[in-house]
Amino acid sequence: MATTETDPRTIDPNLGAQIVADAREHVLYSWSVQSAINPIPVAGAEGRHFWDYDGKRYLDFASQLVNVNIGHQHPKIIQAIKDQADKLCTIGPPMANESRSQLGRMLAEVTPGDLSVSFFTNGGTEANENAVKLARLVTGRHKIIARYRSYHGATHGAVTLTGDPRRWAVEPGMAGVVRAFDPYTYRCPAGHPDPCPVCSGAPHLEEILAYEGAHTVAAIILETVTGTNGIIVPPDGYLQSVREVCDRHGILLILDEVMAGFGRTGKWFACEHWDVVPDILCVAKGINSGYVPLGAMIARGEIIDQVRDRFFPGGLTYAGHPLACASAVASIEAFREEGVVENAAAMGDYFREALGRLQERHPSIGEVRGLGCFWGIELVRDRETKEMLVPFNASGEAAAPVSRVAKAALERGLYLMTHWNVVMVVPPLTITREEAEEGIAILDDVLAIADEYYQE
Amino acid sequence: MATTETDPRTIDPNLGAQIVADAREHVLYSWSVQSAINPIPVAGAEGRHFWDYDGKRYLDFASQLVNVNIGHQHPKIIQAIKDQADKLCTIGPPMANESRSQLGRMLAEVTPGDLSVSFFTNGGTEANENAVKLARLVTGRHKIIARYRSYHGATHGAVTLTGDPRRWAVEPGMAGVVRAFDPYTYRCPAGHPDPCPVCSGAPHLEEILAYEGAHTVAAIILETVTGTNGIIVPPDGYLQSVREVCDRHGILLILDEVMAGFGRTGKWFACEHWDVVPDILCVAKGINSGYVPLGAMIARGEIIDQVRDRFFPGGLTYAGHPLACASAVASIEAFREEGVVENAAAMGDYFREALGRLQERHPSIGEVRGLGCFWGIELVRDRETKEMLVPFNASGEAAAPVSRVAKAALERGLYLMTHWNVVMVVPPLTITREEAEEGIAILDDVLAIADEYYQE
Repeated sequence: MATTETDPRTIDPNLGAQIVADAREHVLYSWSVQSAINPIPVAGAEGRHFWDYDGKRYLDFASQLVNVNIGHQHPKIIQAIKDQADKLCTIGPPMANESRSQLGRMLAEVTPGDLSVSFFTNGGTEANENAVKLARLVTGRHKIIARYRSYHGATHGAVTLTGDPRRWAVEPGMAGVVRAFDPYTYRCPAGHPDPCPVCSGAPHLEEILAYEGAHTVAAIILETVTGTNGIIVPPDGYLQSVREVCDRHGILLILDEVMAGFGRTGKWFACEHWDVVPDILCVAKGINSGYVPLGAMIARGEIIDQVRDRFFPGGLTYAGHPLACASAVASIEAFREEGVVENAAAMGDYFREALGRLQERHPSIGEVRGLGCFWGIELVRDRETKEMLVPFNASGEAAAPVSRVAKAALERGLYLMTHWNVVMVVPPLTITREEAEEGIAILDDVLAIADEYYQE
Repeated sequence: MATTETDPRTIDPNLGAQIVADAREHVLYSWSVQSAINPIPVAGAEGRHFWDYDGKRYLDFASQLVNVNIGHQHPKIIQAIKDQADKLCTIGPPMANESRSQLGRMLAEVTPGDLSVSFFTNGGTEANENAVKLARLVTGRHKIIARYRSYHGATHGAVTLTGDPRRWAVEPGMAGVVRAFDPYTYRCPAGHPDPCPVCSGAPHLEEILAYEGAHTVAAIILETVTGTNGIIVPPDGYLQSVREVCDRHGILLILDEVMAGFGRTGKWFACEHWDVVPDILCVAKGINSGYVPLGAMIARGEIIDQVRDRFFPGGLTYAGHPLACASAVASIEAFREEGVVENAAAMGDYFREALGRLQERHPSIGEVRGLGCFWGIELVRDRETKEMLVPFNASGEAAAPVSRVAKAALERGLYLMTHWNVVMVVPPLTITREEAEEGIAILDDVLAIADEYYQE
């Protein structure tokens, strides 16, 4: 996967300025204070890079919103979109369509176990919303257990499942959501004794189930590896333990792999690291790298069989959109042909080692954790006390230590995603060793800013 | 807008059978009993037609799910998708992008009044979800008034706004939703005295506001012309009256024109029939005929200015998707160049007259109502008692009188959307007089089935 020889940047600063002016006047920006937006006008992108109208080029260490898994402008996916556009752009959900059926069949192949029936949506949020509907339909129970450090989407149901503060804006939220703690070993809510009741899975959940009544719980929903809220990899044994608790109580296990799925962790799906098959797997993002909006809730055939004669209470106009499905079919083929998941795994070895070296050089790095191309660097003011470099849910001045790091990286051509005190390293899975080294070198430079805040 | 000379149907029954078999095994169907699905495998589409792998051709009197406003496979939109695919398929919401900015500017132009700031989503559901968030943010109030005969989407918040029984599956639903009656003059919940407190707008709403506390209400959300739940056109004066109530109490008016917008009623937006500008307009479907999943919540600049310095609590990975925005830009251009809205208005005159004639010939037609290319035929067992031909929320055997009509039409090559006792006439806005006459003639035939049930 070579980068291009010639630099395809488009230089037209006036057009760039016009695009930004129109955006400020006519576009409402996600999760933002509108008066503070300062978007980069993106002229083009390719592979692991995008560029603006001043000709400035950026290495995309964020895969945009951790969705461009295959990299930007992959020719095979572009061709599939163009071919499908010529053939049939859209057709309603009551119909059958070749690309929709083909994707359904391929997802049954690439997902683990007997996951085999897909409900197609426009994104991960709707996949999670429908997973809750299905779990309640199948079990006849109401409650859903979700964790504090999680993001499951922004619509009313999905954001209630979400643990992070973006949930607060819609509370009281959907009824029946019960909160659990995360196996966040670095800041364990149980103080991490050995064995830890929270980080081992079962004891914490069993305690909650005793208080809630296990027979009232339809499902447990987890990000297999927590994404935005800190890239938290569960300890070995955790996921198996959760699966066992679910089985014991007839509770469905929903794994949200919207971020963690499709190679992000160095396996096709993150749950394969622990040989666990959920009852429902929710995906989006990496399914087609977001080239066309698409998500899917994928259920075990056995689960669907239980409700095959009952009305499924979910739907949407663009369910199984032909253009979206065709792009996903092409992306899965490209993953196979080009060994994209294998590259993510190999680069995971590199990142583990390279980020470990950064931790040795930068006192502000409290912990480095991750898998594949899914890494978080947690920054602290003090390794002993683990005081966060940026407090929980901070913004503005309080968030400056990390926003300064991100801004300095951007000036040097490295685009980073950050979340409070965590800097993420989540590039496209097709990243080369050279590109990774280039990004890590810039990170090494700019983390000096974080170190300035270190208390000694 | 001519139909093609040559028939582009693809005849391959084996492929069609394979596609259906895969769909049954691997695709979960929207709003369906899975064991009962019997999808048409669609091989292709053009203009007002689609066809299956047996070479059978269907006149699309449903515009799929009332979304293919411009007709199938419009060459200008296909070209725009292909061009944008070559240029830039996707880029994250924090960036600025040419097609996103351009669409924001164009929506400010084509929408009425000072509607000028767009939050882009993947569909109408998310547009409505975000309208609620914005209304609550702006007003600092919690309650939302929504009507019984409405459909606003399937995610947890949107389906709680929804009046139709699809809401029941998620109840208790989002807190703070208050229900109002509709100006459904044919079956008025107030018995329709003159003047009618419900169908005139203000009295019914004022009564609810007195009981609820007007100062606790953030917004009233309405489908300007009710879609799925019966194509209900409000009487003249109703919408103006609702607007006036909103203004008097500092309540925002949210109009859901996901179905009614973009020419469906013979004007760009349905609210223009009554010269009313909402505070927030929600659109999707006709914005780009669903060629790429897209929706938008469009707010008045003045509303956004009130919260410009505050955090907007909504977002999604594919907000302002370049491919989706580019297709909408091309569609709006095509609407202008080809007089699509004007054709919808002209065809509205035809449908009014043609459906009126059907009503004279078929006793089972209780009422015909609509605007532009947005018509409902309400079927009854008795015009005097207005007993519904299919009861509210009926399915299976109880729904047979109308499902038999739809099936007979399909056999004759006419694809219809029906909802309980209402048969809809909602073709692409580009329909020709000849195509409309062809469809109406088939309707005339098959409505004889409905007449069989008429009580005399």
